[in-house]
Amino acid sequence: MELHAHNRERLVAALRAHLSTSGRPLRGFVLLQGGEEQTRHCTDYEELFRQESYFAYLFGVREPGFYGAVDIASGQSVLFAPRLKADYAVWMGEIKPLSYFKDRYKVDMVFYVDEIEQFFSEHEKPLLFLLYGKSTNSGNYSKPASFQGIDKFDTDLNTLHPVVTECRVTKSDMELALIQYANDVSSEAHVEVMRRAKPGMKEYQLESTFLHHAYMYGACRHCSYTCICATGENSSVLHYGHSAAPNDSTLKDGDMALMDMGAEYGFYGSDITCSYPVNGKFSSNQRTIYNAVLKAHDSVISRMRPGVKWIDMHELAERTILEALEKGNLIRGDIDDMMARRLGAVFMPHGLGHFLGIDTHDVGDYLEGLHKPKKPRMSSLRTIRELQQDMVITVEPGCYFIDALLRAAKDDPISSKFFNWEEIEKYKTFGGVRIESNLYVTAQGCKNLTNCPRETWEIEAVMAGAPWPSRAPCS
Amino acid sequence: MELHAHNRERLVAALRAHLSTSGRPLRGFVLLQGGEEQTRHCTDYEELFRQESYFAYLFGVREPGFYGAVDIASGQSVLFAPRLKADYAVWMGEIKPLSYFKDRYKVDMVFYVDEIEQFFSEHEKPLLFLLYGKSTNSGNYSKPASFQGIDKFDTDLNTLHPVVTECRVTKSDMELALIQYANDVSSEAHVEVMRRAKPGMKEYQLESTFLHHAYMYGACRHCSYTCICATGENSSVLHYGHSAAPNDSTLKDGDMALMDMGAEYGFYGSDITCSYPVNGKFSSNQRTIYNAVLKAHDSVISRMRPGVKWIDMHELAERTILEALEKGNLIRGDIDDMMARRLGAVFMPHGLGHFLGIDTHDVGDYLEGLHKPKKPRMSSLRTIRELQQDMVITVEPGCYFIDALLRAAKDDPISSKFFNWEEIEKYKTFGGVRIESNLYVTAQGCKNLTNCPRETWEIEAVMAGAPWPSRAPCS
Repeated sequence: MELHAHNRERLVAALRAHLSTSGRPLRGFVLLQGGEEQTRHCTDYEELFRQESYFAYLFGVREPGFYGAVDIASGQSVLFAPRLKADYAVWMGEIKPLSYFKDRYKVDMVFYVDEIEQFFSEHEKPLLFLLYGKSTNSGNYSKPASFQGIDKFDTDLNTLHPVVTECRVTKSDMELALIQYANDVSSEAHVEVMRRAKPGMKEYQLESTFLHHAYMYGACRHCSYTCICATGENSSVLHYGHSAAPNDSTLKDGDMALMDMGAEYGFYGSDITCSYPVNGKFSSNQRTIYNAVLKAHDSVISRMRPGVKWIDMHELAERTILEALEKGNLIRGDIDDMMARRLGAVFMPHGLGHFLGIDTHDVGDYLEGLHKPKKPRMSSLRTIRELQQDMVITVEPGCYFIDALLRAAKDDPISSKFFNWEEIEKYKTFGGVRIESNLYVTAQGCKNLTNCPRETWEIEAVMAGAPWPSRAPCS
Repeated sequence: MELHAHNRERLVAALRAHLSTSGRPLRGFVLLQGGEEQTRHCTDYEELFRQESYFAYLFGVREPGFYGAVDIASGQSVLFAPRLKADYAVWMGEIKPLSYFKDRYKVDMVFYVDEIEQFFSEHEKPLLFLLYGKSTNSGNYSKPASFQGIDKFDTDLNTLHPVVTECRVTKSDMELALIQYANDVSSEAHVEVMRRAKPGMKEYQLESTFLHHAYMYGACRHCSYTCICATGENSSVLHYGHSAAPNDSTLKDGDMALMDMGAEYGFYGSDITCSYPVNGKFSSNQRTIYNAVLKAHDSVISRMRPGVKWIDMHELAERTILEALEKGNLIRGDIDDMMARRLGAVFMPHGLGHFLGIDTHDVGDYLEGLHKPKKPRMSSLRTIRELQQDMVITVEPGCYFIDALLRAAKDDPISSKFFNWEEIEKYKTFGGVRIESNLYVTAQGCKNLTNCPRETWEIEAVMAGAPWPSRAPCS
């Protein structure tokens, strides 16, 4: 809870600085409304509740139906708890007194939700800073808090969202510790899955193994996203695993597996991808593609430090992969020409990575005024910011053989000549490779929070039963 | 898919009968809108999609964004699939042609969603029967289908909901087979959990074990509801396990465990509770309460047959438990007097059971005109219908020591004298016992679809390592 108190302190400091700059008074309340429990369609099936992310950031409350406020002048924090009906005690559990929430969530005051209006009325109608703004990842808008009687107060919808979003971009040591824990649990679970993968199994059995390991031994009840357990051709579907492609294929000897899975702990997540041959031994073609991606992964990590532009890292990954493919005789010609034609995006149609935190695609990726790059096939970059110390960002280069994109390249007379179509034909059912780690940007460089076998020989050894980690985690 | 085609046939027959009775023309279309994918709050986190239940019943479609229609005159069925953007192929998977859905879902025609208006226009503006009605379990209303241009057609909001709801109440052999499969997988997973439970473990480790077993070996990706893994005092919280009570206590030697967990397969679910001592040996007090509940469970099952009133079964369960508690010296006095005072509800404040099918609390529990019983503490009955052949219903008596209810009984001078408070004090931290099986009503009686160890000696043997099933499933 200290973590969330610290988050509130950071927000108050940032808001004061922001208001000072524009000469506005340093008073009023930040007011957020937490998430509500949802039932599925018209039934009484209750989805397992997970707190709204901004509310989780500032208050860490796990229960639905709360409001939270912070007094900008004093920094004091207030929670408003729902007043539960008597039969809650029978069905849902003990009705906790307000003092329980005050202790648990380390706030200065706790009232009931139906006391919000009265609370603010006693403060000479303060200005209420509400959370309203667009998520650049989803295009959805956050819902500003609302309560009976809010129309009696002055509200500000513009100030809070960019300020709190920017606070979330750099992580405190306590936040980092949770992301590291989620990474430790998930890395271990990935290794467990890797060891158990065998031809003849179903993809969902790998998903089940991951989920079980993360929950059973890591207490991670939620995952950061639906598991992507793709083998063979499925591994070229970037977001495989959803309801229309539900991890239900059979693992086949000779297939690659692409496992993109990450557990969440204390609201903070991880996002890790491992790629390996289902049968435990890399074929020559698999080694070519895998090592192209690994080189991109390692090259980027070796260059990351504050001040580096993310778009440059993305281009570095593309170039590294193209160079390796050229060496592997899949493409031919001048790499600069290929980069100018954006051929890297034929093999890697997604961005190099994204911020990671309470959300998997964490907030703050595009600052006001920063727009998505206009270069063709660069719009998939989830951020183009300069790296700053204390950011946590994924590095996830990939190389895929995607029918739709290869066909389009073949149909373009200028692009087409760069490809060795005869060689590429051999990769028709290859699918793809992605290697994804979670990086913390330090003052001098970066720290890899993920600890999975990455070199082909490490993977082959671990799949054959060798211990992991075979060495101390790299730092 | 034959199952869903059969469901449509049953609906068409029922609708025709209904319309005939009221002298209305036997034409028009049933039109349903399937569920949409949801993102969490303002983020791009996508919840794993599970189809809306009525749409699943009639069409069995696993993907989001569909509409479905049935021609009442001809019985022909039509699906409308979403038109996906080209980049779906890169991110989500191959864009399937309409013929794929026609084959997969065994319907007569498939068009795109943006062709709905045109499709109906070509049918001389038929009457559209839309799904609109209240779920008596949740109090929520189902959302009638809507599409661009629907205002050009006549719609009927009243006819469809009660007719299709009543169709869902009795199960076909194919539906029964799925519920039996979900029961087989879940019974096995319960036994696995039972064997692994040990003092010192965390409740969520039991949840994780169940989920893993059901998914890994039974291919059940969804559960019918959030797992209730309650031990010790927590077992008196009927719906423990949600976000505010997240299965996070430690199993203690001497505690009872109450495990209420059920997996779902092919949209059809199970709902099973096992109760047992964490350390594998029933204490004398545990045996008293457990056997009271087991006797209620068995007595009800032995009486169930078509024509039996559910409210009578509920009272039988209450009476059986009160009799056993009286023998056990926890209460004293005349059982009829206690029944008249509704003392059974102090120990079992929930209903005896509910319909089970595509929804855990399946539809059709209260017919139009049937109202919840007005007797005090009987309003928790989820249905009061007469049993009919082919219904599937849970039998889940329980006996709990719930502080709030016992305090209220003590404060009531008339009720209070029935209790042996000194003896009851010994059960203060006992929690509760629930035994829940899923029953199929046959022509002559009923069939128990659940196969878990139920007798105390069976449970003790299985927890000590004996094989299960030790005999053929009872029928």
